[in-house]
Amino acid sequence: MSILFTMPSKIITLTTDFGFKDPYSAEMKATILSICPNAVIVDITHEITKFNIRMGAFVLASAAPYFPEGTVHVAVVDPSVGTQRRPILIQTKRSFFVGPDNGLLVLAAEKQGIVRIHELANPRFMLPKVSDTFHGRDVFAPAAANLANGKKPSAFGPEVREATKIEFAKVTGGKGGLVGEVVYVDGFGNIITNIKEKEVVQTIVKGTVSLKLAGYKLKLKFCKAYGEIKPQESLASIGSHGFLEIALNQGNAAAKYKTKAGDRVTITSDLHLEK
Amino acid sequence: MSILFTMPSKIITLTTDFGFKDPYSAEMKATILSICPNAVIVDITHEITKFNIRMGAFVLASAAPYFPEGTVHVAVVDPSVGTQRRPILIQTKRSFFVGPDNGLLVLAAEKQGIVRIHELANPRFMLPKVSDTFHGRDVFAPAAANLANGKKPSAFGPEVREATKIEFAKVTGGKGGLVGEVVYVDGFGNIITNIKEKEVVQTIVKGTVSLKLAGYKLKLKFCKAYGEIKPQESLASIGSHGFLEIALNQGNAAAKYKTKAGDRVTITSDLHLEK
Amino acid sequence: MSILFTMPSKIITLTTDFGFKDPYSAEMKATILSICPNAVIVDITHEITKFNIRMGAFVLASAAPYFPEGTVHVAVVDPSVGTQRRPILIQTKRSFFVGPDNGLLVLAAEKQGIVRIHELANPRFMLPKVSDTFHGRDVFAPAAANLANGKKPSAFGPEVREATKIEFAKVTGGKGGLVGEVVYVDGFGNIITNIKEKEVVQTIVKGTVSLKLAGYKLKLKFCKAYGEIKPQESLASIGSHGFLEIALNQGNAAAKYKTKAGDRVTITSDLHLEK
Repeated sequence: MSILFTMPSKIITLTTDFGFKDPYSAEMKATILSICPNAVIVDITHEITKFNIRMGAFVLASAAPYFPEGTVHVAVVDPSVGTQRRPILIQTKRSFFVGPDNGLLVLAAEKQGIVRIHELANPRFMLPKVSDTFHGRDVFAPAAANLANGKKPSAFGPEVREATKIEFAKVTGGKGGLVGEVVYVDGFGNIITNIKEKEVVQTIVKGTVSLKLAGYKLKLKFCKAYGEIKPQESLASIGSHGFLEIALNQGNAAAKYKTKAGDRVTITSDLHLEK
Repeated sequence: MSILFTMPSKIITLTTDFGFKDPYSAEMKATILSICPNAVIVDITHEITKFNIRMGAFVLASAAPYFPEGTVHVAVVDPSVGTQRRPILIQTKRSFFVGPDNGLLVLAAEKQGIVRIHELANPRFMLPKVSDTFHGRDVFAPAAANLANGKKPSAFGPEVREATKIEFAKVTGGKGGLVGEVVYVDGFGNIITNIKEKEVVQTIVKGTVSLKLAGYKLKLKFCKAYGEIKPQESLASIGSHGFLEIALNQGNAAAKYKTKAGDRVTITSDLHLEK
Repeated sequence: MSILFTMPSKIITLTTDFGFKDPYSAEMKATILSICPNAVIVDITHEITKFNIRMGAFVLASAAPYFPEGTVHVAVVDPSVGTQRRPILIQTKRSFFVGPDNGLLVLAAEKQGIVRIHELANPRFMLPKVSDTFHGRDVFAPAAANLANGKKPSAFGPEVREATKIEFAKVTGGKGGLVGEVVYVDGFGNIITNIKEKEVVQTIVKGTVSLKLAGYKLKLKFCKAYGEIKPQESLASIGSHGFLEIALNQGNAAAKYKTKAGDRVTITSDLHLEK
């Protein structure tokens, strides 16, 4: 009889624009499991719109807070793979982020408090042959697996003072109203903005949120749950990540209002006067 | 040297209409792994048509019998999330089902013999902040993970006498023929009905099944395997779940016969006389 | 206190044309975990084009080399399921391949060196009831799980002298140029050919590859990385699997050049003279 000693499993997540048809995400998983056999790999998504760094950053920042401490998050939306953009790892107070230094990681990492950033420069923690077109498999997956194995961040390369950020719209405005942005449209057609619950609450008049969106002026009932109104009717609510969301009960709000990520949204307590 | 004691892994399955693009299924997995680190999570599917409870019920009931005893099945097709519909768990003779009390779970659970049903009411087994729009992450995932950890069903809330059922068509008819329903069209275009093998067998005449489907009168060879006929020809067979299926060898029967779930199907041993 | 002894986990991969909507891949996973509870199951893909054995063979052969020794690869693209085509397992110097004997497995297996091939004939290693339409669940998944459990290949059935091969185009030609084939178009629209790096290198003139593809005559800059040229411009490069690839920086080359798998591609160092 032989006793095998097992190490606790380590969670590694993947967020990419690779899709599910091609073998690319599987090649990343194969690389990870070759280096860290007890990794538990969780797909956040592989359906980020190709090359859409902002969307990848938003999705990663949405999901990351729910993972346990010590999770290693790998994200690859990397239109500049093989050029001068640096591969990096970010250690935060809760976890690790690994990917290209193009803004993809920072939104999620800043929420957790960035501790240090290192360039991935040490070839010991890459595949023996590094392609110029697929760092997900050749650089980022091995880095993540080695981090999961307990390698220290400083072993991967020189410290980096600051990572590239991408600008998300700030909510602006004053008495007249607040101007924000649609940051994501989900698969249900829910329109998710960057306006926070406490900002929305100030503008509610008689249970109604007044807003301008993509050419529409809307007065929507402010609801806790979709089911408070009839099917196919529109509502405003605070979505599951704490931001103002425009939705259709059992329908697709983004299709109805022809809305996409990046669109401006204005909420105001005075809008009902203008109509 | 330290010895780590590991618990046997517990399987938790997910069946949802969340799709693969959004971070929602990953947030459920993150929550599960935070509570039950040794859970083995298996996606049954996340591509149930949005809000289609009947389709979710059918797919869950198809897959569940193949999982080992003790598996915890979570299903979320939940158009009434946040309203009065109850969150429940069902213990059967083989496993557990967790989800909204809207009919999604009962078809699969009844096949295994329902032992008891409990409302999910105990906030100890929910996330600290429960949203009104995403019980998959905030209520059902934590319940499943706690069940996998060995918590007793009675700890989750009061016993519920009966869960909501959804009606699936019963096969009806007598001498003249049998009337059933298309319950599912799979990705290959195979048309899966609710008519059982033993019912079909009675109507076979000279190796042929006669049926009416979506305006078509068909006499199809009753085959064991698709390859018994030429490519692009139609056949009737007993599918891998034991029901009458209409298929095209290497083609898409649902596209050819413009058929969808819910369509009526009639089989008769006399139909060949009517033609 | 009880000590549980755990076995090292075994990796089983899945490559199928089942899609992600239907419960079929989950039923395979359920079967595997019922027989081999510590299996680590990795999806290579379930989105092989229905019945496209060549595409399945290519994708499997791309991903398999990255998995650790001892991995069991199951592949199911099986238009002739239930007919005379044999179910087989192939043992190579590195791993195992399980699936239908229709050419799907051999491309990947030959790369690793085939050691022996056995027919899957022993009903002890199948589900008790074997359907004629779903050997993925009833024959191949149980075989893979039993291999992962350490069962010897010879226990599954008689040795098979040779497995069915599918012909992939050979690169042909001499002084005038090389004629190859598009073997895959990935989700980014990258056009992957079967022409190897060393063959391409001979034809490069002043950093340019001249080629004919789907009616187009192209002179493309030979790049290491996509980012060496402007967005939406075309380039030639060696892809991450070592073959000539035609790509568009941040765009879709296959859409631009109306190219699909199977198309002929000619590269020549003289083509620039003809223009």
